[in-house]
Amino acid sequence: MMLNCVNPDDLEPRAVLRSKTFADITGFKHEFIRDLHQGQSGHEVNLLCWLVGRTRDHGTMLFLPVGDSSGTIQVVVDKAKVPSWAELKTLKTESSLKVSGTLSLSRGKAEILLEKASIISKATKLLHPEIRKLDKDILANANTDKVLANRHLYLRNPLILALNAYRSHFFTAIHEWFKDHQFVDISAPLITPSILYEPNSAIHLTNLKTNKTLFLSQCAGFYLEAAAHAHERVYNLGPSFRNESRTNRHLMEYWHIKAEICSGKMDDIMDLVEIFLRDISETLLPFTDKLTAMMETKRPRIQIPFPRISYIDAVALLNEKGFPLSFGQNISKQAENILSEHFGGPLWISHKPRDLEPFPYCISPEDERLSMTADLISSGGFGEICGVAEKSYTREELETRMKEKGKMEQMDIYSWVLESRDFGMVPHTAFGMGFERVLRWFCGIPHVKDAIPFPRIFGREPIP
Amino acid sequence: MMLNCVNPDDLEPRAVLRSKTFADITGFKHEFIRDLHQGQSGHEVNLLCWLVGRTRDHGTMLFLPVGDSSGTIQVVVDKAKVPSWAELKTLKTESSLKVSGTLSLSRGKAEILLEKASIISKATKLLHPEIRKLDKDILANANTDKVLANRHLYLRNPLILALNAYRSHFFTAIHEWFKDHQFVDISAPLITPSILYEPNSAIHLTNLKTNKTLFLSQCAGFYLEAAAHAHERVYNLGPSFRNESRTNRHLMEYWHIKAEICSGKMDDIMDLVEIFLRDISETLLPFTDKLTAMMETKRPRIQIPFPRISYIDAVALLNEKGFPLSFGQNISKQAENILSEHFGGPLWISHKPRDLEPFPYCISPEDERLSMTADLISSGGFGEICGVAEKSYTREELETRMKEKGKMEQMDIYSWVLESRDFGMVPHTAFGMGFERVLRWFCGIPHVKDAIPFPRIFGREPIP
Repeated sequence: MMLNCVNPDDLEPRAVLRSKTFADITGFKHEFIRDLHQGQSGHEVNLLCWLVGRTRDHGTMLFLPVGDSSGTIQVVVDKAKVPSWAELKTLKTESSLKVSGTLSLSRGKAEILLEKASIISKATKLLHPEIRKLDKDILANANTDKVLANRHLYLRNPLILALNAYRSHFFTAIHEWFKDHQFVDISAPLITPSILYEPNSAIHLTNLKTNKTLFLSQCAGFYLEAAAHAHERVYNLGPSFRNESRTNRHLMEYWHIKAEICSGKMDDIMDLVEIFLRDISETLLPFTDKLTAMMETKRPRIQIPFPRISYIDAVALLNEKGFPLSFGQNISKQAENILSEHFGGPLWISHKPRDLEPFPYCISPEDERLSMTADLISSGGFGEICGVAEKSYTREELETRMKEKGKMEQMDIYSWVLESRDFGMVPHTAFGMGFERVLRWFCGIPHVKDAIPFPRIFGREPIP
Repeated sequence: MMLNCVNPDDLEPRAVLRSKTFADITGFKHEFIRDLHQGQSGHEVNLLCWLVGRTRDHGTMLFLPVGDSSGTIQVVVDKAKVPSWAELKTLKTESSLKVSGTLSLSRGKAEILLEKASIISKATKLLHPEIRKLDKDILANANTDKVLANRHLYLRNPLILALNAYRSHFFTAIHEWFKDHQFVDISAPLITPSILYEPNSAIHLTNLKTNKTLFLSQCAGFYLEAAAHAHERVYNLGPSFRNESRTNRHLMEYWHIKAEICSGKMDDIMDLVEIFLRDISETLLPFTDKLTAMMETKRPRIQIPFPRISYIDAVALLNEKGFPLSFGQNISKQAENILSEHFGGPLWISHKPRDLEPFPYCISPEDERLSMTADLISSGGFGEICGVAEKSYTREELETRMKEKGKMEQMDIYSWVLESRDFGMVPHTAFGMGFERVLRWFCGIPHVKDAIPFPRIFGREPIP
């Protein structure tokens, strides 16, 4: 059983290190299995690796499937030459070893002819479902509890390993896109007194030797809009925290792609999000295709611009299709799916009722029941992935909205947000995108928990 | 008064956007002051900007100093031609406006000859110390409370703006270095039951509808070592939380550069940290030089390798120099400075007493009183910036250490850390580096609070 590993550097041999000095640190591993597959027969091998499947005993020969982060290879043990074969034969999967021998390439297949094996650490237990098995069941609901409780071990599963490597690659693509477009990366604090939504949806902090309540950040928006009035284009890719219900698209601790830009209107920020998604998805394309092939899923087609429909028109369309919804109600996941199927892909729902949106967002100059916000609904039933808004920049408009939301009684917490309107604030727009949701959509994975190495899910005890 | 702004993209004109489609979004600002300085006389200007200093009235002419994120320029108002001059004259600093006119370049100096100004938002208040003033006093202790309470406004100060732009550039350099060296970016969870140090040094969480205590992460180490046994080279650049004392080098919420690598010994990880610091500091050099010139500070000389001294030898040397210290005591900030002055630069102190170090770190095979850890002390009195360690990879060694630290009674929280030793763990090394400390050292800024946009400091109410 030879597994294929997918890694961010799949297109270049692993050993190509740009800084020669790093490669000069002899204590670190510099030989990787991927490079062996491109090596030459007779090459001497000294490889740190793990037993990734069962040993096969063919009488005079023993075959060990070994792997590392870059791939797998077979080790051939000639029982007449290698005294340790008896010990090797009893090794459990996950045992780590150093393999010394010679590379053999015949009919395009690489193998290591073993001279000596040093066992570094014997695995003493087995875990089911099998850690290294390439099996989509690893992502299935039936295995969730077991897999999450042993997440520290299941990171070695080829699918989870590939998903986390993909995540790393995705992060790089996002940072590069923002830097290419002159955005400044602003670290927003995670400990905050000023949350976007109501306290019952936030995670509370204690033990800070003060009596005031503090929260974990729900959104970097307040901080980014302040920074936008210095740097003009700012972004943040960092954790956000919400006490959400337990569904396949909610995490309690998730990563949020946030951007705020001075100037621009709602249509501009919608355009920006479309370009962002198209550029990132194109950057990731070769890697996405490998991953979706591995999982037998399909990547979505990102053809921009996406259709744009107003909330009021969406409600009418849903009613036409027999789905009951009145003005002022949230568009449910089921309703999102009906709309997404109707348009055959992602779509924007704009001008949501002001009562549904928090206070920093502008009210429509044409209909004061509506806000200048829009949600991007992805395709394939993956639901809402992004929200955009024009943000109130005058004290007058913000005060009106804060009164509606009862925030004027919390001026010890929100006064700084209001005060920033007194110092030359300009019309500005923002978007917020759930990183794990986008990853899930791009790869077609069933549950958002597999889009993050160590998921935190509402109601689940976080171990590890 | 014309200020110089320093930005990450100082070396290329701001308007060079690689994605033409982004530039096609007409609603966003595309004209920046830096580009105007490189423009041609007669060019028509439509600029979103802020008043960054006082207007000067010269009888028939009015001069407005305006600025944006990329620089500053003077706007010339001919009173005979511009009816709004009277209103412009009374504008307070920070007021935002749109300036339309013609670019004039004479004797190498760019100015905008005003045709029309639209006032977007009048600043209604003034703040002292002045928001836009280029004055090192903005970083001085005397102004700390005022500046931190108004951090949302002081982000526009040229020094703080430059420091945050530098921070963004620094992040990019770190991510690129790790990606260049085949590291995978692993998001460690910030909500965790398993902390590295004792609960009194951690921030506690409530309201998670369980009775167990949870904490904000003090270190990504436990999670990264699990991931290292999948990806072999992993890193994390993310927030860490500690209830530290209030000094000029401690933050309650700081950014931690963490890396874990399979294989290697303590000397290898020390080599790696040296190469990392040298490469990053070289990447940042042009920008560091601008920033230190602005602040009249000096960047440190990073010449590797750094001297390495054992803890025992350091204690002896300090005693020789008349500084009393006994085996088992922590090396204080004062002692660090004596050593750093002695060596004339950064130095490593290795093999610290096992009692001073948390349980995951290896014990010296040569002296069981000592651990396989080392701290990097920077130069110039900026103190400790990095710790490295060999990590225990056998159940036997880790159990011994966990017993010493009383962790065996907390197996509901730490069992997964111990159990990972049963599944083929290999010798591995780690480093942890305080990002804001390194930034502070590179730029020579007095207090670590100015190395982060919204500092969280022990004992200070976090507003904003």
